[in-house]
Amino acid sequence: MYHNPFYTPEVQGQHELISIGRLDLEHGGSIEDCQLAVATRGTLNEARDNTILIPTWFTGTHQAWLDTYIGPEHALDPSKYFIVIVNQIGNGLSTSPHNTGDEMIAMSRFPFVTIGDDVVAQERLLREHFGVTELFAVVGASMGAQQAYEWAVRFPDRVRRAAPIAGTAKNTPHDFLFTQVLIDAVTSDPGFNGGEYASNKEVVAGLKHHARVWAVMGLSTEWWKQEEWRALGFETPQQTVEEFLEPIFAALDPNSLLVMGQKWQHGDVSQHAGGDLAQALGRVQAKVFTMPISEDMFFPVRDCAAESELIPDGELRVIDDVAGHFGLFGFVPSYMEQVNRNLAELFAS
Amino acid sequence: MYHNPFYTPEVQGQHELISIGRLDLEHGGSIEDCQLAVATRGTLNEARDNTILIPTWFTGTHQAWLDTYIGPEHALDPSKYFIVIVNQIGNGLSTSPHNTGDEMIAMSRFPFVTIGDDVVAQERLLREHFGVTELFAVVGASMGAQQAYEWAVRFPDRVRRAAPIAGTAKNTPHDFLFTQVLIDAVTSDPGFNGGEYASNKEVVAGLKHHARVWAVMGLSTEWWKQEEWRALGFETPQQTVEEFLEPIFAALDPNSLLVMGQKWQHGDVSQHAGGDLAQALGRVQAKVFTMPISEDMFFPVRDCAAESELIPDGELRVIDDVAGHFGLFGFVPSYMEQVNRNLAELFAS
Repeated sequence: MYHNPFYTPEVQGQHELISIGRLDLEHGGSIEDCQLAVATRGTLNEARDNTILIPTWFTGTHQAWLDTYIGPEHALDPSKYFIVIVNQIGNGLSTSPHNTGDEMIAMSRFPFVTIGDDVVAQERLLREHFGVTELFAVVGASMGAQQAYEWAVRFPDRVRRAAPIAGTAKNTPHDFLFTQVLIDAVTSDPGFNGGEYASNKEVVAGLKHHARVWAVMGLSTEWWKQEEWRALGFETPQQTVEEFLEPIFAALDPNSLLVMGQKWQHGDVSQHAGGDLAQALGRVQAKVFTMPISEDMFFPVRDCAAESELIPDGELRVIDDVAGHFGLFGFVPSYMEQVNRNLAELFAS
Repeated sequence: MYHNPFYTPEVQGQHELISIGRLDLEHGGSIEDCQLAVATRGTLNEARDNTILIPTWFTGTHQAWLDTYIGPEHALDPSKYFIVIVNQIGNGLSTSPHNTGDEMIAMSRFPFVTIGDDVVAQERLLREHFGVTELFAVVGASMGAQQAYEWAVRFPDRVRRAAPIAGTAKNTPHDFLFTQVLIDAVTSDPGFNGGEYASNKEVVAGLKHHARVWAVMGLSTEWWKQEEWRALGFETPQQTVEEFLEPIFAALDPNSLLVMGQKWQHGDVSQHAGGDLAQALGRVQAKVFTMPISEDMFFPVRDCAAESELIPDGELRVIDDVAGHFGLFGFVPSYMEQVNRNLAELFAS
């Protein structure tokens, strides 16, 4: 346990820590006192049928959604919906290696957590804390898309709509390998010390190395070529890496990247149907808009399109964005226009 | 200097070490006794106009070309052409950090070498050692494509044909960042010790990390998804990484990867025209078939197509191959069919 200023209300805005009690994990072990960091907007209606759940992406927190996606000018409009953003387990805000007071699971002793564990935790949170058992929609991007798919497969009769953005229901072999490179970058730093560092500052070299991997895969070949970083105020690619990407990742907790990375690697809804992805996605009752980003380097459109075709009420809605995966941050104004248009149509259906 | 068994005739087949004397380097410093490792096939004709030069790719040696590209059944037919394969400087066979007896440039003291330095060295080799001043063709892939473009721009009246495969004339910003990740993987290993290790065995962790980066970028998302590794005799992606890719890179000399990686990063023919790529490529007199590979993750077709359009007698010939960049190894039989067809047409023109 150590103090990391990134995971404080000063940076992350106000949010609530809600205990859901003991969470037994799919792959063994448990979290005795599982706390979920939650931010909500809007109000639950009397019918209790206007809840939109938003799970978070790799390294992301609720704040990224509040900053870019939610507001009266967006489809995710708090005047209409009760929006619940739940930080994923291990992301540094919910129960995580560096912030838990439970020595049994602190730092390198943190257990292997799955996408399914997150969804089970979220379901319990919504039911027990908010009295919500049915989702108007689940909207998630990247690892949040994994959680959205998991919701739709695991609780088919309780999810009305799903919008998985830039992510997959079953992690691809390529993404497994890519995530390994992200993990390698952190664990190969001697300062990581098998997860038993005194603070993220001891692992800065590895975290920056990790950032440089994201430079190659998070942003597209074309984003770099068209010098789109100029729109962010930078003068060179090198400056963009050193003053933008490296500081973002250097602030994070290294063990959190491992917990999330391994979770990402093993995301796979086909586990609910003996490994048969078509059968698993065939169970989905929700209306699903699968929304890959055109220039995504590691969730290519065709991978998402193949999954979309397996969903009975599924449609493919490609978001055109030169930024690639990091288009999720809404760098390019037309990104949110497209997301809003698609979400509005999905919500109106 | 240490003995690395990968760089011996037992592994690399017979080749000749030819000294071209002192090589002064573009960015300062020199190699006092620059030795180029060379393999030839075929015979120089009386007119001295049938020479095809083949420079090597990142980590590649002449042996990769002999194994896959050269023979009576290929367009690169030794009965017609005098084929000269020159290993690039720093690749472990030509003068390199780990094999030089010159203490001034050994290991971490090896100077920064450019694509231009290689081409200057090759030009001297061909002229002084073989009496060749004109190229029937230069054929190169990846970093070999960089050298092919450099030849065509630097010596426009001496190169009749050029076939740059899966590479660029001006390195893209994305590839600069990608190469940095490759370099990071090696240098972040404590065993690398700033380049002063006793053998590559001390850097095996970093070399394997480097291999895992190649798994993500050298092979395509689709190659992994379609389980093309089965054709190579593997059972799982993990086995493919551990028993195929990791051993390949673990055998290499770490400093050689740095020398080649930095050289790759700075490849740019526009330096011959004050930074104006269109002007530089506009000087090319050779007939050029630019041959990107359809699924290449880091030399995407559109980057190569854009350069092709700047070449007066240039044509784009896309090679369709699910393997992506590592298609270069000829895993997929249709790869060589396409390369041979295009080279044959180029050579007949």
